Amino acid sequence: MKARNPGEKLHLNLFVMGNGHHRAAWRHPDSCAERLGDIAYYESLARIAERGKLDALFFADGMSVGSVEDGFHWHLEPLTALSAMSRATRRIGLISTISSTFYTPFHAARLVGSLDHISGGRVGWNVVTSMFDSEARNHGYAAMPPHAERYARAEEFVQTVLALWDSWSDDAIERDRQGRYADPDKVRQIDHHGEHFLVDGPLNLPRPPQGNPVLVQAGASSQGRDLAARYAEAIYAVAYDLEAAQAYYRDIKSRVAAAGRTAPVPILPGLVTYVGSTMEEARAKQRELDDCLPVEASLRQLGLFIEQDCSGWDLDAPVPSLPPLAEFRGPQGRYATILRIVETEQPTLRELLGRLAAGGGHCTMIGTPESIADEMERWFHGRGADGFNLMPPSLPSGIEDFVDQVVPELQRRGLFREEYEAATLRGHFGLERPAG
Amino acid sequence: MKARNPGEKLHLNLFVMGNGHHRAAWRHPDSCAERLGDIAYYESLARIAERGKLDALFFADGMSVGSVEDGFHWHLEPLTALSAMSRATRRIGLISTISSTFYTPFHAARLVGSLDHISGGRVGWNVVTSMFDSEARNHGYAAMPPHAERYARAEEFVQTVLALWDSWSDDAIERDRQGRYADPDKVRQIDHHGEHFLVDGPLNLPRPPQGNPVLVQAGASSQGRDLAARYAEAIYAVAYDLEAAQAYYRDIKSRVAAAGRTAPVPILPGLVTYVGSTMEEARAKQRELDDCLPVEASLRQLGLFIEQDCSGWDLDAPVPSLPPLAEFRGPQGRYATILRIVETEQPTLRELLGRLAAGGGHCTMIGTPESIADEMERWFHGRGADGFNLMPPSLPSGIEDFVDQVVPELQRRGLFREEYEAATLRGHFGLERPAG
Ligand SMILES: Cc1cc2nc3c(=O)[nH]c(=O)nc-3n(C[C@H](O)[C@H](O)[C@H](O)COP(=O)(O)O)c2cc1C
Ligand SMILES: Cc1cc2nc3c(=O)[nH]c(=O)nc-3n(C[C@H](O)[C@H](O)[C@H](O)COP(=O)(O)O)c2cc1C
Repeated sequence: MKARNPGEKLHLNLFVMGNGHHRAAWRHPDSCAERLGDIAYYESLARIAERGKLDALFFADGMSVGSVEDGFHWHLEPLTALSAMSRATRRIGLISTISSTFYTPFHAARLVGSLDHISGGRVGWNVVTSMFDSEARNHGYAAMPPHAERYARAEEFVQTVLALWDSWSDDAIERDRQGRYADPDKVRQIDHHGEHFLVDGPLNLPRPPQGNPVLVQAGASSQGRDLAARYAEAIYAVAYDLEAAQAYYRDIKSRVAAAGRTAPVPILPGLVTYVGSTMEEARAKQRELDDCLPVEASLRQLGLFIEQDCSGWDLDAPVPSLPPLAEFRGPQGRYATILRIVETEQPTLRELLGRLAAGGGHCTMIGTPESIADEMERWFHGRGADGFNLMPPSLPSGIEDFVDQVVPELQRRGLFREEYEAATLRGHFGLERPAG
Repeated sequence: MKARNPGEKLHLNLFVMGNGHHRAAWRHPDSCAERLGDIAYYESLARIAERGKLDALFFADGMSVGSVEDGFHWHLEPLTALSAMSRATRRIGLISTISSTFYTPFHAARLVGSLDHISGGRVGWNVVTSMFDSEARNHGYAAMPPHAERYARAEEFVQTVLALWDSWSDDAIERDRQGRYADPDKVRQIDHHGEHFLVDGPLNLPRPPQGNPVLVQAGASSQGRDLAARYAEAIYAVAYDLEAAQAYYRDIKSRVAAAGRTAPVPILPGLVTYVGSTMEEARAKQRELDDCLPVEASLRQLGLFIEQDCSGWDLDAPVPSLPPLAEFRGPQGRYATILRIVETEQPTLRELLGRLAAGGGHCTMIGTPESIADEMERWFHGRGADGFNLMPPSLPSGIEDFVDQVVPELQRRGLFREEYEAATLRGHFGLERPAG
């Protein structure tokens, strides 16, 4: 395992999510459940993240409504929200999901490019192919196109967007008041006539400040990883523990190398943190949120995941032992996560419900600023992560705790920047600006 | 002609356009040509318009690049720009064009709805069907679909967007921390399975603050006028003089009545103004911009419009008389405008080029605050207009002149509000909030 270069730093991203990543966060008496449609709330989150010198914040996106009974995520559309948030901040990067299955490349290139102009070069695009039939059925499809087809479209989509961003040369605009505004030879058609898209171009927007806004990807499948390896400039990962993170990290870095790329491509696993000045305080914060979970509904859901009736189980006793993965006939991914939590943490039933309610498959760190920084350092030096995608269980308190307590500890150790050194998201991630 | 109610007021909208509506505005030595990609520039325009208590400002939109040599309009995408501008203002309405030919109803409903949440109920949507093959060829079509087909799609598009905005009841959200977040019976599928769209819904966004963001339309054709009559809540018009405005006004109001609607539906003809403390000063401002026009290119263009070679004509002599409309074999619309300008204004060739370069077919008023207010009053009382869509030939100076000189004169006459009386765009336009 290659040692980190001296001075090499972590990258930190805030995954913005309503009242937090714990499903019951909105139920907490102190939550901002009343402010989920209030842009000033998101602006205040962005300012906290910027106070912590984070590389970026991230707005996920979906195209259907999900469960409205048990909280509801999409009170604002990400691109419009991020535009406002860019004006409340000066340095932090702003990453939005856009689905290649439901947008056209021209809209995506233009919306993201415009946001890059508005924010002065701070934008990233998380390329997703979407998942649910309910999303497809809001955009003219009877059902979601098959996985392979979605990824084929995604690749052509990304290529087209990149070509559109490149359709204006950096020096196209002359603004010669006695002559011409721009040089028409430096504003070129792209004439993309592919399998999925016909786009003549050029884009009706000058080249974005970053050249290309940063491409982010979070693919888990082999197709997803390959797309990420070929195009992504930063990657969101899911890793329950360091071992899983290392395996993913090695796999992606070797795919990136195989694709002939030398860009750093930081890999950022999701990270749920409960921070306290003592372990007890951290555990109490976790317990406070877990106690907000509606027990019956959570038990019913757990029952579906493990295909057993657990309504009679004792909430405060250890979870009974579960059949091994090989004997389980339902969906494997979630069941494997549950098995892992039960085996490695020996939780009570109530604790298990809480862990599943807050980024189940992602890494969770509970402790003091020092113990969490230790653990993050271990992942960083162990090459499980180039940084983390922070998923605070509750917002704003969870990101305030992190920024005010963990960030200073990371800074003391020289693991995180004291001040922004760059003005763009590319700069924060250590990425070159493409020549075009 | 029905007299205006006492206290009835004009509606004023600023049509934001790069450095102004005069094609040569960017060439003026004092222009902000360097700031066309700078969101702070648009925010400052919005603040000036709000200082003038205007009802709204409007961002047009197109899906292809147009002439990059002779200025270039689309430095920012309207929805992302308006989101930032909403945070720099408190009361003014914010209207964006979205094309029903190139978006999906779900995206349109969501983007506009999100902006309505972000702005606290100040958003309007100008429904257009788009025009150019170059736009179609950026979105997968080989050429623009025929006019009738575009309007059929537009109508189904509008119906679907309205249904999506209505898919959440106003009281759907309960936020019962011990119970449920929202009442699932008040968040309904729309199950729209029409000729052009399949959209199950519901929208993944609670009902917008205005219920429906305000629908605006600018159709000129019979189909366009009918769409406007059935759905529009404000209308942008093109009228060269009061007579043309009255004819359009009568036609639209009777179509609105025939559609069984009683909403006010303000009609706002475009208005280009050159304001000075004397007529000479106003004319000098016009001349200063006209002098920025590149003469050869303008003459070449005029030659195409009138199908004559006018390169040898004397710039400072009156335009020679032109053949009557009936004898002209080229495109009629533009030629008719040219004939009208020549007949009613007896311009020099240079003046004609200037008039065509700044909102040719729209009304132009040149004069003092008093004379312009007189004329606006005549249009208002003569029922040619319920207000105006201001198209300043240069920005920001043209809107500053209007706000600082004409608005106070209109206020003195009781023709325009002294302060905002409402918090939403619906409120400014005197429209009810739909019950849903
Ligand atoms: C941190 C993170 C954020 C994600 N954000 C989104 C999102 O906003 N929208 C979406 O549809 N999918 C999102 N995904 C899902 C991924 O794009 C991807 O579809 C998923 O990891 C499954 O991988 P696959 O597509 O390669 O099968 C996200 C995944 C992760 C790990
Ligand atoms: C003030 C005004 C603004 C307009 N804005 C746009 C626009 O932003 N994008 C667009 O494609 N068309 C725009 N149009 C064109 C109209 O939507 C419409 O297509 C045009 O008036 C021709 O009418 P028709 O579509 O009924 O044939 C605008 C027209 C006017 C008068």
